[in-house]
Amino acid sequence: MRARTGMKSNNMVIAQSGGPSMVINMSLVGAVRAARGKAGSAKIGKILGARHGIQGILAGDYIDLRKVGDRKLDAIALTPSSALGSCRLKPTADDCRRIFEAFKKLGVGYFFYIGGNDSADAARIVAEEAEKDGYPLVCYHIPKTIDNDLRSCDHTPGFGSAAKFVATALRGDDLDNRALGGVKIDVIMGRDAGFLTAASALARTRPDDGPHLVYLPEVPFSEDKFVKDVKASMKKFGRCVVAVSEGIRGKDGVPIGAKLADGERDSHGNVQMSGSGALGDALAKLLKTKAGVKRVRADTFGYLQRSFPGVASETDRKEAFLAGRAAVEAALKGKLTKGTIGIIREEGRKYRVAFLPRPIADAAKFTRSVPKEFIAKNGHDVTEAFIAYAKPLVGELPKCETFD
Amino acid sequence: MRARTGMKSNNMVIAQSGGPSMVINMSLVGAVRAARGKAGSAKIGKILGARHGIQGILAGDYIDLRKVGDRKLDAIALTPSSALGSCRLKPTADDCRRIFEAFKKLGVGYFFYIGGNDSADAARIVAEEAEKDGYPLVCYHIPKTIDNDLRSCDHTPGFGSAAKFVATALRGDDLDNRALGGVKIDVIMGRDAGFLTAASALARTRPDDGPHLVYLPEVPFSEDKFVKDVKASMKKFGRCVVAVSEGIRGKDGVPIGAKLADGERDSHGNVQMSGSGALGDALAKLLKTKAGVKRVRADTFGYLQRSFPGVASETDRKEAFLAGRAAVEAALKGKLTKGTIGIIREEGRKYRVAFLPRPIADAAKFTRSVPKEFIAKNGHDVTEAFIAYAKPLVGELPKCETFD
Repeated sequence: MRARTGMKSNNMVIAQSGGPSMVINMSLVGAVRAARGKAGSAKIGKILGARHGIQGILAGDYIDLRKVGDRKLDAIALTPSSALGSCRLKPTADDCRRIFEAFKKLGVGYFFYIGGNDSADAARIVAEEAEKDGYPLVCYHIPKTIDNDLRSCDHTPGFGSAAKFVATALRGDDLDNRALGGVKIDVIMGRDAGFLTAASALARTRPDDGPHLVYLPEVPFSEDKFVKDVKASMKKFGRCVVAVSEGIRGKDGVPIGAKLADGERDSHGNVQMSGSGALGDALAKLLKTKAGVKRVRADTFGYLQRSFPGVASETDRKEAFLAGRAAVEAALKGKLTKGTIGIIREEGRKYRVAFLPRPIADAAKFTRSVPKEFIAKNGHDVTEAFIAYAKPLVGELPKCETFD
Repeated sequence: MRARTGMKSNNMVIAQSGGPSMVINMSLVGAVRAARGKAGSAKIGKILGARHGIQGILAGDYIDLRKVGDRKLDAIALTPSSALGSCRLKPTADDCRRIFEAFKKLGVGYFFYIGGNDSADAARIVAEEAEKDGYPLVCYHIPKTIDNDLRSCDHTPGFGSAAKFVATALRGDDLDNRALGGVKIDVIMGRDAGFLTAASALARTRPDDGPHLVYLPEVPFSEDKFVKDVKASMKKFGRCVVAVSEGIRGKDGVPIGAKLADGERDSHGNVQMSGSGALGDALAKLLKTKAGVKRVRADTFGYLQRSFPGVASETDRKEAFLAGRAAVEAALKGKLTKGTIGIIREEGRKYRVAFLPRPIADAAKFTRSVPKEFIAKNGHDVTEAFIAYAKPLVGELPKCETFD
């Protein structure tokens, strides 16, 4: 309890962590604008952006965000990737001591950390260690992840834009497959949760549009079923477009892609899955040998899903900005001192969301899976309920026309 | 000579062949609009679109393109991929006999084939066989290829849009690499010619922007040089973004990716390269073991480069339309009866092109490589001359901003 009663310094540090997204800079700018605005300026002194997350705090590497002009700030908001740089560091208790020493010297009483569940966990550790140490710190996590797997949010900033990229890509790729036939496999990001892969279904406008098969990590993947599904699609449509999550796993629960990719592990214990074409190639080989399909191609969408400029969802952009702003406003109110921003969808036909402060632990560490009502009973598609859920987050896709 | 003096029927067939592009439908619609227009309608009867190229002619599978409404046609023009469907078929003399029998029954005297060098070669075979058989056929190839490797064109429709996708992707990917560091390898399409990989350099706006290394199939690839280049980039920038063509080959001239991908061969004798992540993964493994870089990721851009909706270059769209129109106009003039449309860049500082009929053999079979003056002396970059060449074809890229 010492933290709440101690003398709080009024400078703030903000940083970005984990995988970049197309709108994480929107959240940064939303927070900075709120801190520089009327209410913020009365309470917040310096606004320091730490480079490469906690690493920048430990190294004393900051950008003075009060000095960055509005026009530049707005241009950065529209730019994909993490403008402050990122890291994947889980702070130790010792790291936290060093952070508080640095914060004390700089007079920092507010800390904002933008990222996914691992970043929320890092912020939670910092917040809890500060409480233990009696360092007076208001600490907020600002949600971001293209995986859409935070338990504290109906959906997360970053998801809508990545989902728009995936759905747009599938719409074009389905036309490509119409032209040349055979099987096309698209491997889509999502370590544990299949939301992004599920979003591929938004590409469809007609009954014979691809993706014809959608495989999520939430459903145990069976090679035999896969071969059978593809054969059935080839028979029905004369072709087959497959959207498959990089995180699919067999009955043993071990991700198939991670086994094939032979990748490294980060300090949160996550195995590398992206940045390798191994899973797609293995599935293509399987179909050539066991399904007897001659033309099989596999693409792994990779980092384009989170970094491609110019295709962000407008709703996602706006909400990312508002999440950043909400965190600063909640921090200034001071009711909840260790928080995250929950994004709650309101009831009713019209799409509306609220940004509500929640305990930081709600976003930390554990993730959310695609719920059962979003997964089709056949195990290789999504439901109408998922489409209704995801559509407003993604917005309009480029129109495509065919002769049929 | 019988072909020229024989009684020519006035119906036309148009078809698409080879790999789709973002603007191949623009060429289709340009040709159809010219044929339906004032000058065309006086001379051309039916306008038949054959599905899946020559395969559709052999199967008698047509769409009546006089009956498709203007609005639908315009929407198809803006849609990526080949709306009529495609194929990769090299017609035999026997196929040609069957084609002329079908054409005779349908009263077809005009044939337009949109595609790359292999498609031009297919059209050339049809044209020459018609001449031999005395079948009166005006036959035009309409240029298309994202590889930009037709000898008859300064640049080809399809290239500008694919180049815009690649440059946009690299701009985003470079920001992603700035945020998380290490080496990022992007494998880019281009079987024999490195134009598309070279276009990655358009992403740069500042001296430390990626791609830091660009490898074209025109320069023999050396693993040792690659490792050395990456180490130097890591030392200079603390990170490294690599753009590498799927077609890179060692001193033996054999494409490295084709060896790794173990793919099939089409009827023109081309080995499959795209639709596999094998090359990227092999290069990543090489760097992890020999350059001692911990974080290495590889993405293979794959079919998105030619099919992603909504990012086409405006110049490319316009020129694709005009190439289609020019083919019909040249066919109606009747001066050259077996032609292709050459796209010639005019001298002078202002970008301007002319569309000129050329003998069909000029586009057929043999391809063009990236010329020496576009390749940097260090063997891993492009020159300013290439940037000046490619920039007007691609147009504006999404603006991105950073704190530095």
